[in-house]
Amino acid sequence: MWPVEGLPEVRAGDDLAALIAGALAEPLHDRDVVVVAQKIVSKAEGRVVALSTVTPSDRARTMAVESGKDARQLEVVLRETRAIVRWERGVLISETHHGFVCANAGVDRSNAGAPDSVVMLPVDPDASAARLREEIGRRSGCDVAVVVTDTFGRAWREGHVNVAIGMAGLPALLRYMGQHDPQGYELRVTEIALADEIAAAAELVMGKLDRHPVAILRGLEPPASRETAHDYIRPKEKDMFR
Amino acid sequence: MWPVEGLPEVRAGDDLAALIAGALAEPLHDRDVVVVAQKIVSKAEGRVVALSTVTPSDRARTMAVESGKDARQLEVVLRETRAIVRWERGVLISETHHGFVCANAGVDRSNAGAPDSVVMLPVDPDASAARLREEIGRRSGCDVAVVVTDTFGRAWREGHVNVAIGMAGLPALLRYMGQHDPQGYELRVTEIALADEIAAAAELVMGKLDRHPVAILRGLEPPASRETAHDYIRPKEKDMFR
Repeated sequence: MWPVEGLPEVRAGDDLAALIAGALAEPLHDRDVVVVAQKIVSKAEGRVVALSTVTPSDRARTMAVESGKDARQLEVVLRETRAIVRWERGVLISETHHGFVCANAGVDRSNAGAPDSVVMLPVDPDASAARLREEIGRRSGCDVAVVVTDTFGRAWREGHVNVAIGMAGLPALLRYMGQHDPQGYELRVTEIALADEIAAAAELVMGKLDRHPVAILRGLEPPASRETAHDYIRPKEKDMFR
Repeated sequence: MWPVEGLPEVRAGDDLAALIAGALAEPLHDRDVVVVAQKIVSKAEGRVVALSTVTPSDRARTMAVESGKDARQLEVVLRETRAIVRWERGVLISETHHGFVCANAGVDRSNAGAPDSVVMLPVDPDASAARLREEIGRRSGCDVAVVVTDTFGRAWREGHVNVAIGMAGLPALLRYMGQHDPQGYELRVTEIALADEIAAAAELVMGKLDRHPVAILRGLEPPASRETAHDYIRPKEKDMFR
């Protein structure tokens, strides 16, 4: 597992696969996993908005008064939000249009690459991952997997961890359903969130401040799969925490 | 990152540090992280109970009728539970006496090493990690860090991930508070759950069925720290999801 060094600052319209392929210090192998931070995917896709162009709704203005936050930024968050899961003491937990549950619908002001701007999540991070996989595969001649990651908080536990918000070419969930231990008991944990664990692992070498927004994980060689990060979204009727 | 191969079946009273040190194929280095699955820590500490010795309370009997589950196993779960966070459709989300929020208070019937028995979490997983760290350090002459892990489900997201329930010699949280991006904006994500990400990473090589309950992570070299897994427990007054 190692970070890709020397990637340039990513701008709207950039060919991200070409930038990543160009920055690789050594050739990719089949079944390598290329882990890419959401921030640079969003920037390449133009998912950055200057706050000066945003007119806050009444709701955003009310929330700004309640929290002391920027009404224009709250407006962007609300546009990215399908449902508000919690709004307490200035902390907004959103369900995004994708179905992810996270703070501020993933909208972030840091590392936007422009002053007074915010970055939104990609419109379809699985599609972003699939495009990157195809393009990196074409350029490298290798069948790689791609995981697009963001750093989410958790219920009950302090601290953030990197998770998969988009993916292509590997399973979301490794299923052990029906497998038994030596005494014949079915395993309690039946689904391991493989791409989420890969995202968390990659963060260890990517680091914060978005210094290394791409990492390569070699040796795991996950099986090919058509699963996507949508497989992580728990159906509302099964969810006990909304 | 690699798994430790050939560890014997662990039994109550075993010297786990000696077993791990004896199974290492190559010497440890300073600042290696030794990741140990909770199950073998619990077994070595005798945290296994034969269900035949358990008399279920009225409450456990009622829950067994509601869910079709084993009343004796539910009784063990209730004894390990400080507060029930959710009890719906046979799924029990507990706050353990440690303060962790997880299914069934971490009590598990698979891989108990004995028929009709269940394994509980260690009484004090941070103390378990500290003892392992000291003993492995003494035997290897290296200053290692230790993370004791279990596999937890998450709110909102399908699948389980490995997390740190005990730790010694490394930070729980890497803090970026007050750090700014090139435009001068404070970083949104201010605390990365380092030991949780290490636990998730290690699971990639440990695999399920508890085949490889110990893994070594080299090269990260986390700073020494006195933090514990208690630093992950969100204070109730800050928790929006109980």
